[in-house]
Amino acid sequence: MTSSSVIAIHSRDNAFVKDLRRLAQDTTAYRKQGRVWLEGDHLCRAALARGLRASVAVFSESFWPSARVEYAQDAIKTIVLADALFADISGLESPARMGFILDLPAPAALRADAATVVLDRVQDAGNVGSILRSASAFGFRQVVAFKGSAALWSPKVLRAGMGAHFALDLIEGVGLEDVQALQVPLVVTSSHAGDYLHRVALPWPCAWVMGHEGQGVSAALEERAALRIRIAQPGGEESLNVAAAAAICLHASGAGR
Amino acid sequence: MTSSSVIAIHSRDNAFVKDLRRLAQDTTAYRKQGRVWLEGDHLCRAALARGLRASVAVFSESFWPSARVEYAQDAIKTIVLADALFADISGLESPARMGFILDLPAPAALRADAATVVLDRVQDAGNVGSILRSASAFGFRQVVAFKGSAALWSPKVLRAGMGAHFALDLIEGVGLEDVQALQVPLVVTSSHAGDYLHRVALPWPCAWVMGHEGQGVSAALEERAALRIRIAQPGGEESLNVAAAAAICLHASGAGR
Repeated sequence: MTSSSVIAIHSRDNAFVKDLRRLAQDTTAYRKQGRVWLEGDHLCRAALARGLRASVAVFSESFWPSARVEYAQDAIKTIVLADALFADISGLESPARMGFILDLPAPAALRADAATVVLDRVQDAGNVGSILRSASAFGFRQVVAFKGSAALWSPKVLRAGMGAHFALDLIEGVGLEDVQALQVPLVVTSSHAGDYLHRVALPWPCAWVMGHEGQGVSAALEERAALRIRIAQPGGEESLNVAAAAAICLHASGAGR
Repeated sequence: MTSSSVIAIHSRDNAFVKDLRRLAQDTTAYRKQGRVWLEGDHLCRAALARGLRASVAVFSESFWPSARVEYAQDAIKTIVLADALFADISGLESPARMGFILDLPAPAALRADAATVVLDRVQDAGNVGSILRSASAFGFRQVVAFKGSAALWSPKVLRAGMGAHFALDLIEGVGLEDVQALQVPLVVTSSHAGDYLHRVALPWPCAWVMGHEGQGVSAALEERAALRIRIAQPGGEESLNVAAAAAICLHASGAGR
């Protein structure tokens, strides 16, 4: 592995380290810094597989000697951190041993005819990441998020998304006017009203709306829906986890077409 | 609200407080203490709705005056904690303001003919809680967990389960011999092999096996399966989140019967 541009850092007070710590721990720091933090082997490989290039590859000191060549060869800069420093920077319960800093992809332009998932203030990072994964798996290509949804490029959403971010066009901070610009039918999920999913013929492409964990989909979006869908729950529980409901709906829409 | 048996506690070193802190923060303390900690309004109401009775109802000092009568009236003991003490005990990112201590329900006996979900070392607490919710919603009545799965009655699994625990028979620490005792067909999920879910007629009742997040279902369980199922992913991603896959499979089995 070439080491010509490798920089070793041992100080917590180093300016690069301070910025990286913010990026890894503050859910919206990526918006200010214009770059995102991909922590761990799986995410970094997913980015490479999509042809993305790290601006900085970061390694823990003990991992660095055994790191794959591909991790560092395309990076503009390679930084090696003392192990304790790497662990201190990580916002994860089990810190990884390497990561990439990537320039934040430019927000995509809204495509009016694309199969879309609309996040209406879905708050939990794990739920949002899981929905991105399902969206990508079932052939949706665009995810748009209303203000109040978990920050899409935050480290926890990236972690839960397992690379789905790189297969999707993501647009944050959309409003009602953006949803109205969509030319595909709007399908909203409800816990208590509408047609049963297993009995309807679903349109394709369409835009599925997934709502806030407690409050569900907003009235303003419900009013604009072409279709309201609920999931039969013969066991009688009051509602499913939103990522579970999304998986069922997106699969019903996308699989076996 | 009657206050005859209300005890106020302000000290971190109180023996009750120390035990409760362990119960709320250590994922397996419930096994040693023989009781579980239900934190927050939603979980406590779900327990009450199933006719369960708290052994101790715990309130934060500022919440106590406005608490519902039903929360305290059936509890054997009511304890009011200083707000800072309650927040310190909680293992949640956003601590609640009340909770119940409940005797750990006696483990159910395995029912060989019941619709069952088998957790084969599913590790993430959020995933396990979401799967319990889906199981309950889709008419499964028994969930059995192999050693290595997240502790079913841990605070995080309880939180993610949103009350599903009280609608299910839960059995932890099962082995292959227990699965062999089931008389319903064993259906395993796979990320890369087997029949496509949307093309098969599923048996009912059956036992769905959900596997480890990284490794999937063990070879020993796969060998014993009557059916191997995979979920079509036209988007081409490598795999779904296990709780998302479980939601899709359990819905396909249970809904619209």
